[in-house]
Amino acid sequence: MNGNSFGHIFRITTWGESHGSSLGAIVDGCPSGLPLCAEDFLPDLERRQGGKTAFTTPRKESDLVLIESGVFEDKTTGSPICLRLVNQEQKSADYHSLKDIFRPGHADLTTHLKHGHRDHRGGGRSSARETAARVAAGVVAKKILCLNNIHLAAWVSQVGPHKVEDLSTRSLEEIRGLETWKNWEGELESLRAKKDSWGGILSCKVEGIPPGLGEPVFDKLGSVLAHALMSLPAAVSFRQGSISEEAPGSLIRDPISWKAGAPTPLSNKHGGILGGMSTGLPLLCHVGFHAPTSIAQPIETVSKTGIPQSLKVDGRHDAFPLPRALPIVEAMVAIVLLDSLMRAGLVSQKII
Amino acid sequence: MNGNSFGHIFRITTWGESHGSSLGAIVDGCPSGLPLCAEDFLPDLERRQGGKTAFTTPRKESDLVLIESGVFEDKTTGSPICLRLVNQEQKSADYHSLKDIFRPGHADLTTHLKHGHRDHRGGGRSSARETAARVAAGVVAKKILCLNNIHLAAWVSQVGPHKVEDLSTRSLEEIRGLETWKNWEGELESLRAKKDSWGGILSCKVEGIPPGLGEPVFDKLGSVLAHALMSLPAAVSFRQGSISEEAPGSLIRDPISWKAGAPTPLSNKHGGILGGMSTGLPLLCHVGFHAPTSIAQPIETVSKTGIPQSLKVDGRHDAFPLPRALPIVEAMVAIVLLDSLMRAGLVSQKII
Amino acid sequence: MNGNSFGHIFRITTWGESHGSSLGAIVDGCPSGLPLCAEDFLPDLERRQGGKTAFTTPRKESDLVLIESGVFEDKTTGSPICLRLVNQEQKSADYHSLKDIFRPGHADLTTHLKHGHRDHRGGGRSSARETAARVAAGVVAKKILCLNNIHLAAWVSQVGPHKVEDLSTRSLEEIRGLETWKNWEGELESLRAKKDSWGGILSCKVEGIPPGLGEPVFDKLGSVLAHALMSLPAAVSFRQGSISEEAPGSLIRDPISWKAGAPTPLSNKHGGILGGMSTGLPLLCHVGFHAPTSIAQPIETVSKTGIPQSLKVDGRHDAFPLPRALPIVEAMVAIVLLDSLMRAGLVSQKII
Amino acid sequence: MNGNSFGHIFRITTWGESHGSSLGAIVDGCPSGLPLCAEDFLPDLERRQGGKTAFTTPRKESDLVLIESGVFEDKTTGSPICLRLVNQEQKSADYHSLKDIFRPGHADLTTHLKHGHRDHRGGGRSSARETAARVAAGVVAKKILCLNNIHLAAWVSQVGPHKVEDLSTRSLEEIRGLETWKNWEGELESLRAKKDSWGGILSCKVEGIPPGLGEPVFDKLGSVLAHALMSLPAAVSFRQGSISEEAPGSLIRDPISWKAGAPTPLSNKHGGILGGMSTGLPLLCHVGFHAPTSIAQPIETVSKTGIPQSLKVDGRHDAFPLPRALPIVEAMVAIVLLDSLMRAGLVSQKII
Repeated sequence: MNGNSFGHIFRITTWGESHGSSLGAIVDGCPSGLPLCAEDFLPDLERRQGGKTAFTTPRKESDLVLIESGVFEDKTTGSPICLRLVNQEQKSADYHSLKDIFRPGHADLTTHLKHGHRDHRGGGRSSARETAARVAAGVVAKKILCLNNIHLAAWVSQVGPHKVEDLSTRSLEEIRGLETWKNWEGELESLRAKKDSWGGILSCKVEGIPPGLGEPVFDKLGSVLAHALMSLPAAVSFRQGSISEEAPGSLIRDPISWKAGAPTPLSNKHGGILGGMSTGLPLLCHVGFHAPTSIAQPIETVSKTGIPQSLKVDGRHDAFPLPRALPIVEAMVAIVLLDSLMRAGLVSQKII
Repeated sequence: MNGNSFGHIFRITTWGESHGSSLGAIVDGCPSGLPLCAEDFLPDLERRQGGKTAFTTPRKESDLVLIESGVFEDKTTGSPICLRLVNQEQKSADYHSLKDIFRPGHADLTTHLKHGHRDHRGGGRSSARETAARVAAGVVAKKILCLNNIHLAAWVSQVGPHKVEDLSTRSLEEIRGLETWKNWEGELESLRAKKDSWGGILSCKVEGIPPGLGEPVFDKLGSVLAHALMSLPAAVSFRQGSISEEAPGSLIRDPISWKAGAPTPLSNKHGGILGGMSTGLPLLCHVGFHAPTSIAQPIETVSKTGIPQSLKVDGRHDAFPLPRALPIVEAMVAIVLLDSLMRAGLVSQKII
Repeated sequence: MNGNSFGHIFRITTWGESHGSSLGAIVDGCPSGLPLCAEDFLPDLERRQGGKTAFTTPRKESDLVLIESGVFEDKTTGSPICLRLVNQEQKSADYHSLKDIFRPGHADLTTHLKHGHRDHRGGGRSSARETAARVAAGVVAKKILCLNNIHLAAWVSQVGPHKVEDLSTRSLEEIRGLETWKNWEGELESLRAKKDSWGGILSCKVEGIPPGLGEPVFDKLGSVLAHALMSLPAAVSFRQGSISEEAPGSLIRDPISWKAGAPTPLSNKHGGILGGMSTGLPLLCHVGFHAPTSIAQPIETVSKTGIPQSLKVDGRHDAFPLPRALPIVEAMVAIVLLDSLMRAGLVSQKII
Repeated sequence: MNGNSFGHIFRITTWGESHGSSLGAIVDGCPSGLPLCAEDFLPDLERRQGGKTAFTTPRKESDLVLIESGVFEDKTTGSPICLRLVNQEQKSADYHSLKDIFRPGHADLTTHLKHGHRDHRGGGRSSARETAARVAAGVVAKKILCLNNIHLAAWVSQVGPHKVEDLSTRSLEEIRGLETWKNWEGELESLRAKKDSWGGILSCKVEGIPPGLGEPVFDKLGSVLAHALMSLPAAVSFRQGSISEEAPGSLIRDPISWKAGAPTPLSNKHGGILGGMSTGLPLLCHVGFHAPTSIAQPIETVSKTGIPQSLKVDGRHDAFPLPRALPIVEAMVAIVLLDSLMRAGLVSQKII
């Protein structure tokens, strides 16, 4: 009811604030017999941290996923899997200045208005650190999708105002290798110098989805993906497929032909979903994020008691955080697809 | 699980195909004591039909909502409200030619691949007629929102490639009166003549939402709105607020000030939602629809058994159906908001 | 949330009062391809009415199930099935005397206290007529269970204070033929003459359940059965299996042996469920109903405004209604088992 | 779907096996502002361990509840509360002999048949240790009920075959002080000597419930209590109120009178629930547990591969564990009632 869980059969529940003891996810509905160990989580959590030399540098404790339950002798048992990440000791004093004040563009204000009593340290429950739990759960989902020959990759398809060339027809391998934002590295550098920031768009492509996935009315595949991806911090837009609302009907139609013994659209303008259900062609979706508003330029705000003041958010200034969101987008897409497959009865509950 | 229900506390379940006996919605979770009668449903169902003289022309049977349960002496009792619309006798023969063939761009193909056995008449369960049930349920939601001083209106904000001037700061009364697409009536006429069509964008504004509505993690207010609105037929995009992914961080910040004894953003670039929860400022959201692909230009398809053929969808040709979707968008937004209010414990379960 | 739905994947939602226009059930999650027609519902609805010559007497309209959706050319499509029963014209005046008064032992009082505004006619939403919708939904569940070789039968195992001999090891065919209460027909006659009534216990046996059904923690198979069966009007007790709380541990153990290549308990004191999951042996459960309290002996009550008065419930006086509850118990057990099978991924979503 | 969560608005999710790293509960839906600290959990967890001098003896690590999230400066924030109990180091070798064998009367067999791969140590997910997580969650529920003037107590009402005198009209204070099983201490001693065991019945009384709680159809208050209590290990029966299925209708009726400005039953044979909804009188329910079957008398079983053998469960032999289940029953009743109150909108989401 409070929206800390997602999914129906493959269902994750996250808990934790950025400065509590620990945070994590309960992954419920995982089939038994899936090989799973702590190392499986390292690559995606490393991508989320933005690090480049994931396996060579000493890990920070906060990157380690502790498997508290649901795994026995390195294989899942069908019981809920508790994935836990310990928060590092943080000096609460660092946040003392933010105790009674609201950072514009953050959940500080709305959390205060909703709950009254809040953990002001580092964004509390609304901290981007919560997405680490999603990435961890996504790793489990991706492993099961792989066993079902479903693969996916996300990429940066827009950097601030700059559109990246269309990669949607490239192979997943090619997509994975590309750091598409590098073309604008100079601009990003000067943004950072000006203490400003950019958002952009992340796109995701999925191959191997069987046709007929998704439900025809409220839980269209695109609706559930929209729900999942619009729940990411700073997400402002979602788009399904490559069809635009601007084009006339005559230009956005995919004829249907017979292929490998089954009716199949000849082209993929629809992005893999028709009437809310997958066609079997690659799935494409796009999620837009606004630029980070926690920049080092001062802005006006007020305290809890109404005293106006100018606030300048110091500390690390991330001018373009989108590359770090790639594994988060992949995690949410994987969770949606796995749950949809399970709703369709297409995933075995025992892996032999 | 099959996605025929939506909402948690105010929960609607729709049933029915376009050519079955009847279709409708079970509205569960409505407070007791709400005045409700069949006439309440006429205006929005009339808007959905595109009619202009709703109350003067003789009603078609299919527009009448029968209240089967949950209402006693013209007031709700707290029991589930069954709203039923009888389907008119239709000559099934009209659809005989579509029995074994897939209309490109429709759910025919994916329904066949998902379920095997399908009702091919008029789109079956995926018919746009299903949205009549949503509109009926939305009428109930709107009535309760009104009692809680929450009001909303949707408008056409983009007509094919043409952006309508920004109406987001206009009053709801002004917005309701405008037929914004009329500026392009000539172009729409020539589209129709060419047997082509346009999509566009519908926007919705809501006033009176208390702050703190929505949940901070998976069920952000924007996520649930995205889920609801992306579940409409032909929806391809969702956008929250007026912030774009292209603008730098420095241009999209709303300073916070003290107003009427509470902290409040000074501007509303965020569109009424921060961190997934309402700020108390007007809520803005936008949903894009692609152009109808059922146009009278022929297109290639195949039959169930793989025989290729050219298909031309005859009959009524709707070159720009977006005005008829306005009450549907309003219905889904109203249902999301009412359910969120109920999740927050802000709606009395008895109306005195 | 308001408890008008039951089940997760095979999910039924009922609506309707005894004196509204109609009542029924939305059956969601039924596989596509199941043959289904209106006649399928007659036998169990007839058993619920207590009639003996089901197929020969002219049907009352209220016994007919109208299939409003989800079935095309006599087979299900995978879309929600709306099963509707029209209520017969009733003279509301008959109930006028009960408008402002509470029948002791009924939901009149609690409905008034919960909702304020209520439909007082015939028990409103709490009328036993609501169980007709459950029986209709149960017919669908039973048909799918049959296809999966799961069969069940309920019988009257206690008549007021009199225990019927243990039938739990008899075959389902034998059980179905027995009118076990006939032994006490004389006593029941004199009860009726005294304007009194009896309750008793109904037992249900299910054969063919695969092992491992049910979930180990909150949704033990027995917990969900208890939920379902205790939701029947007048139910006061639930018991799983044949193990009692009185026996010492040494007398209630079932040794395990090897049978047909799998470990299997040698005896079935556990009633087919261990640790919340089925063992593969026949499932046994028992539900106790208290005697009807709507008897023609006067009882003290008050009106809405506190005026004391003596109330005598006239009309048909059912001294021992339990035989009519047999199809209702079977329906709820069938719904629980089918949903559990679907949760375990053991039922195909397409019937070829 | 896998039944590791319970409740709708106040919703708990438990995870963990008896020999994993840790186990616990995510408590979602707790209002913000509730004072909560680790010490709050000690008394009920101590009762569950059967200890008598809870606050004076040094705690075992396994009794300590770690609050991982959702609490800031000793008050809840409205975010999910992660309650974690670390499992003590256990010598896995102790369980090696049970690796390939099924203890009769346990979930070993059904877990193997359901999941294939299982954690055999100490019952794995089906260990009674899982109830510690429920007790911890129940402590939170009880604290909120107290603030709403709802209080409850459970007692042992049957010891093996011996019925304890009826305590249902005693005050909660009196009930709490009584160790009703002490009358049969001699018999229990000789049971233990004979390596045998007893079950019995636990009863629970709740005072202060507002009228109208519970839902009239599937989620009757008694149905949900039955679900909750039948989910406890070894539960075999549930009974609501004090009405039996044996008594004639004339003896089980509660007349209604006017009391403090409202209609109220004059007596409480119905046990506080009518038509599935509370009447405002004290709630009474009873749950029966069979005797422990893990006794030191040998029993026949087989190994995974079908080799028959005689099994004698050694170690601590609990001849009458029911007193330790009292806080577990109270926890489940408290969780059901709190969730029902929240479903009725009767609990504030902020505690000031």
